[in-house]
Amino acid sequence: MKLALLGFGTVGQGICEILLKKKDYLKKKYDFDFNIVAVADFVNGNVYNPDGLDIPFILEQAKAKKKFTKDVVDWDNIKLIKECNADVLCELTFTDLNTGGPAIEHCKAALESGKHVVTSNKGPAALKYPEMKKLADKNGVQFLIEGTVCAGTPVINLIDGPLAGCVISKICGILNGTTNYMLSEMEKGMDYDEVLKVAQELGYAEADPTGDVEGYDARGKVTILANIVMGASLEISDVSCEGITKITSDDIKKAKEQNARWKLIGTVEKKDGKVTGSVAPEMIDLSHPLAGVMGATNALTFSTDLLGDVTIVGPGAGKIETGFSILTDILSIHRSK
Amino acid sequence: MKLALLGFGTVGQGICEILLKKKDYLKKKYDFDFNIVAVADFVNGNVYNPDGLDIPFILEQAKAKKKFTKDVVDWDNIKLIKECNADVLCELTFTDLNTGGPAIEHCKAALESGKHVVTSNKGPAALKYPEMKKLADKNGVQFLIEGTVCAGTPVINLIDGPLAGCVISKICGILNGTTNYMLSEMEKGMDYDEVLKVAQELGYAEADPTGDVEGYDARGKVTILANIVMGASLEISDVSCEGITKITSDDIKKAKEQNARWKLIGTVEKKDGKVTGSVAPEMIDLSHPLAGVMGATNALTFSTDLLGDVTIVGPGAGKIETGFSILTDILSIHRSK
Repeated sequence: MKLALLGFGTVGQGICEILLKKKDYLKKKYDFDFNIVAVADFVNGNVYNPDGLDIPFILEQAKAKKKFTKDVVDWDNIKLIKECNADVLCELTFTDLNTGGPAIEHCKAALESGKHVVTSNKGPAALKYPEMKKLADKNGVQFLIEGTVCAGTPVINLIDGPLAGCVISKICGILNGTTNYMLSEMEKGMDYDEVLKVAQELGYAEADPTGDVEGYDARGKVTILANIVMGASLEISDVSCEGITKITSDDIKKAKEQNARWKLIGTVEKKDGKVTGSVAPEMIDLSHPLAGVMGATNALTFSTDLLGDVTIVGPGAGKIETGFSILTDILSIHRSK
Repeated sequence: MKLALLGFGTVGQGICEILLKKKDYLKKKYDFDFNIVAVADFVNGNVYNPDGLDIPFILEQAKAKKKFTKDVVDWDNIKLIKECNADVLCELTFTDLNTGGPAIEHCKAALESGKHVVTSNKGPAALKYPEMKKLADKNGVQFLIEGTVCAGTPVINLIDGPLAGCVISKICGILNGTTNYMLSEMEKGMDYDEVLKVAQELGYAEADPTGDVEGYDARGKVTILANIVMGASLEISDVSCEGITKITSDDIKKAKEQNARWKLIGTVEKKDGKVTGSVAPEMIDLSHPLAGVMGATNALTFSTDLLGDVTIVGPGAGKIETGFSILTDILSIHRSK
């Protein structure tokens, strides 16, 4: 399988490290073989070799923040996507939940030229899923997005695979690891501002923490789940959204006294054929399956017709954890061939 | 897809009810169509119709505990399995973890005559998995056993599907709903004998509760996971096993005082290439992801190289819940065609 990587930051490097480390294992266990033929990055430049790039070398250059020096092409991203001989485009550029950023054009160009798209970028998935899926179907390829919700923790592939046959009426969960980490730490005694500083130092929260603490990141994921799992056509703005900025140490203490705990909960629900989505802090009882999920971990509970509630708990971020989401979708394409 | 059902008790009736109810949905969503051509049950008798049985009618007869009166054949089970035109045999007879019971011969006969086997029967899976898998491979068919561990809650299909690519070094979890229910109730104040009586009244525990309370049921599942997920060749007797019969109300109280909780934990671990399995009550901290799993629910934590810990929580028993395990494996065969 020939792969092209658009974006060579954390996730791009993560999937390369996994693929290099697991090359023999993947060949032996799944009869899966690969070549990375194209990489495009706005810092390092664009490279292409139809017979496969020298991955250890470009990983080294990227880590040293150097421009690529081997197999360099002066094609822009769109030309590279269209002209390269890849079977699969991995769209791994930065997420822009307002406009989708260049990622939408990248995905379109790939699907239109008959290439599968695998992405952990929430932009195209949250803003344009129905359009992308239609384009993929029309061109006989796949648009796979496991990494857009809870990194590589199985969510979308769990629903499409092992849970196929169940009708899901409700999904609720902890969709943002940063805020869950912050709420967990506040329980130990720190106040909101202190804990935000620690989260930023640890790299959980960004310098501008708005996307996490205001619930926007979780709202993007709720939109994705509503549109993919429930077949809705929600816009991000259709999902009500409240973050954790108003939660005080006092609130945390009061919850504890009531055998409860504050969690930022994303919810998608289908009732009488209508799908609604929301993000809001909820005080949940300690006996609730999501109450015990602490730290930067994510968790989702699916309410199903045949199995009742099924909950999955796993990482929500990380270089290798998100890199794996790309691998799992690539292997899914490999299996379907 | 033509199906044969061996055993028409709870699970057999459960899968029929699901298939009847979801016929149109499965056709529309997955392009899946089916006919049940053969049913064999030691109470109701054996019936066969190559064009499809009258399922509502035989469900009615089975529920009334009547002998089947339509499409009756005087073939024994093995002849029925071999001669019928089914693509898939669903082996749903009673579990015998000592000898495997007639289920082993049923599975063999099906695989040898080129039929896929789907089963929730722990006997063949725990005692003869390597042999069955080899026979299936030789005959170009599948031997699928999602229902043998945690009913339809995705475990084996989760590992083979969305978690493919991860290496799993350890699995630990709550594999027996009856004992987890009992331990949960003991925390509310009842002693062991009282709670056992309630569990029996509710149908969670059998008249002879040995299989559950001594940990044998969990041990069978540990053996299955060791052999399938870790590629071991463990016999049931290789797995150390201690049940919950020695846990007293006093133990429960002491654990609570230490912010901990008793759980019957099944563990499979691979260390230095060697796979070991065990079942034993463990006092786990309330912050542990399995601590919050209460009642008859099951849960498994997989320790993986790429995602760290991933936990799945769901039902461990039930007519429809186990019936769904059969559907999920049937749909998996359907997808691979």
